[in-house]
Amino acid sequence: MKPNSVILLIIDGVGDLPTPKTALQAAKKPNMDKLAAEGITGMFSPLGRGIVPGSDTSHLQIFGYEPEVFYPGRGPLEALGIGMELKPGDIAFRTNFGTAKDNKLVDRRAGRIQTEEAQPLQKYLSTKIDDVEIIFRASVDHRGAVIFRGPGLSRHVSDTDPHETGELVKAIPLDNTPEAEKTAKILNKYMEFSMNALGNAEENKLREKNKKLPANILLLRGAGEYREVPSFIERFSIEAACVAGGALYCGVSKYIGMDVFRLPKKNNVEIIREKAVAAAKAAEKYELVFLHVKGCDNCGHDGDFKGKKEMIEKIDKEVIPFIKKSGASIIITGDHSTPVSWKAHSGHEVPILIWSKEERYDKVKKFDELNCMNGGLGHINGCDIMPLILNILKKAEKYGS
Amino acid sequence: MKPNSVILLIIDGVGDLPTPKTALQAAKKPNMDKLAAEGITGMFSPLGRGIVPGSDTSHLQIFGYEPEVFYPGRGPLEALGIGMELKPGDIAFRTNFGTAKDNKLVDRRAGRIQTEEAQPLQKYLSTKIDDVEIIFRASVDHRGAVIFRGPGLSRHVSDTDPHETGELVKAIPLDNTPEAEKTAKILNKYMEFSMNALGNAEENKLREKNKKLPANILLLRGAGEYREVPSFIERFSIEAACVAGGALYCGVSKYIGMDVFRLPKKNNVEIIREKAVAAAKAAEKYELVFLHVKGCDNCGHDGDFKGKKEMIEKIDKEVIPFIKKSGASIIITGDHSTPVSWKAHSGHEVPILIWSKEERYDKVKKFDELNCMNGGLGHINGCDIMPLILNILKKAEKYGS
Repeated sequence: MKPNSVILLIIDGVGDLPTPKTALQAAKKPNMDKLAAEGITGMFSPLGRGIVPGSDTSHLQIFGYEPEVFYPGRGPLEALGIGMELKPGDIAFRTNFGTAKDNKLVDRRAGRIQTEEAQPLQKYLSTKIDDVEIIFRASVDHRGAVIFRGPGLSRHVSDTDPHETGELVKAIPLDNTPEAEKTAKILNKYMEFSMNALGNAEENKLREKNKKLPANILLLRGAGEYREVPSFIERFSIEAACVAGGALYCGVSKYIGMDVFRLPKKNNVEIIREKAVAAAKAAEKYELVFLHVKGCDNCGHDGDFKGKKEMIEKIDKEVIPFIKKSGASIIITGDHSTPVSWKAHSGHEVPILIWSKEERYDKVKKFDELNCMNGGLGHINGCDIMPLILNILKKAEKYGS
Repeated sequence: MKPNSVILLIIDGVGDLPTPKTALQAAKKPNMDKLAAEGITGMFSPLGRGIVPGSDTSHLQIFGYEPEVFYPGRGPLEALGIGMELKPGDIAFRTNFGTAKDNKLVDRRAGRIQTEEAQPLQKYLSTKIDDVEIIFRASVDHRGAVIFRGPGLSRHVSDTDPHETGELVKAIPLDNTPEAEKTAKILNKYMEFSMNALGNAEENKLREKNKKLPANILLLRGAGEYREVPSFIERFSIEAACVAGGALYCGVSKYIGMDVFRLPKKNNVEIIREKAVAAAKAAEKYELVFLHVKGCDNCGHDGDFKGKKEMIEKIDKEVIPFIKKSGASIIITGDHSTPVSWKAHSGHEVPILIWSKEERYDKVKKFDELNCMNGGLGHINGCDIMPLILNILKKAEKYGS
């Protein structure tokens, strides 16, 4: 039997500042506006008013996993998101292939190396240093993740990624424990190991011959310690699935035990209609479907107003009609604002709408920052989302009698 | 001297979903709307956004008694509400007279036995089992309460009420303590005792002769442990009174030390004008008068839109003019929504209005879910109610100097 279900569409970084209009105000988006007119709207602060969310912490909080309690750091979420298996106590990092020369970093992305040239390098980068097993996996383009598995490790270590070109940096322990010292030591040994291994790789010699920057260093950042957390179904008795492209969003979903339908990008472009269709199909089986669309955040980071506006129009055209047809209740919001004038995440609220026969409607007719300020939901926080979802699914346990 | 006073009218279960209008939107209620137009309005979540409240926990929170700290379970509140005296450590239950046949429950309400036929059965049902004194009292219709008084008891026991017809159930301990085990054992012995006592009762033989279902079993549910809590006057320095018909609301009020004016139903109908007059009179002496009206919640549970709308119209006509004449400030809200389309409590907000010369007004002209969304109070929670009341009574203690 088809369950009562909710599709939660997170448009990453959708909120903005008016310049003089926001991308949501400027975009032609009749389908979203119709949902707004028929549904109830408001403004949403994932982590509280004015707080600037990371995408990882924001998504955790949206799904009811308070980051103060449940955030394991970025590394484990990325590693999970690219399909690595983690064990409790593993220390995981995000990685970049970079290019170093004369002990200086000259490119943080190895000349934007493509996936098909980065993948063959993966085989050089798993190893064992002292009693620590090191497992590396390349993912998309220059990106990857690495796991340190062994006794007495700590996530309190600095990055070996200098985050800008120039001097290479060594990892240092971030507290005085022997665990942090050991981990920093292994990390620095692993940097040397990776420079040796990649320096000798035939693939890099070929790249240099072809006037491409060699991927001759692996930069690590975002140390985190993996642990098991109570699963989404245990906590909420809701069958939930994720439809996303980005590793992080898949990783967050896997971390909390959702089923993950990962739709990879094609030619580096998200095929968002496919995602919408997949989400609608998932809503036939799952009670909550988390549908993540990334593009608007990238445009925000690039300061690209036109691109952000067009991405919203594309979502309006290629996502909304398909998820609406599913018959599921629909919630649309973002995980944070990424104003094009800031080129960065901000702490401004994001508009939210709920369209469900189990919810009320309000007088707001358009889904944007200016109109949703007067919405009937008022101003809500990340911690309100799961209770609101449980309520419209009629799966909230009554407190008291 | 007549005190500055507040009448807090709780319309049980008044909030609803639009189908296509809510009962509040559809009802003709010129008096409430006038209060809304002259006062300030908003939306109210007793226990937080999306949380589905019980009536007991919601009322406790409204009066500033956080249920996480102060909720004793339903049993003690019901027992207090029907006038029983409790001692700290007592375990109390709500009870139903039911009808069992061949070890199966055939009716949970003994053919909706009336008060005057249930009362005479009371005398059979107090007893002592092992070292536990058991005190029973019948209240209205099939309802009653029972107290277990003795050493080493626990509230962590399941109900002997199966909540639906069919197999009878035995009580089981809900944790591994000897207290829970002992209580479950006594509970099961008491079930046998009650079946024997009621089975032999002449009253039941007469019922059967008259083709009525015998009240031959007592079903227990909602175990709770009574304890003394700091009284309302101690905590808020406000003289408070309750005017209510239902046992639970009287019980909550008694539990927190309010004076209780219980107005029993007549022919099973609440005489709400009498309650309004009693509340207005109480406002001459008390600073806070809690006036509870039940009918809308029952209509919500029955899916009776027309009944709910008419109940609101009746309250508008028979309550508002009388409490307004008293000169008291007036707050109107509900303890939760009971949408007629759900036939159950929901986590949707409830409209609220405050009409007081010590408060502001807003632009809202009507008291309903759609209009109060834009009210000047915004969205408030149960924990905000007592500070707002203390403020308009000018009895709030300044925090700091």
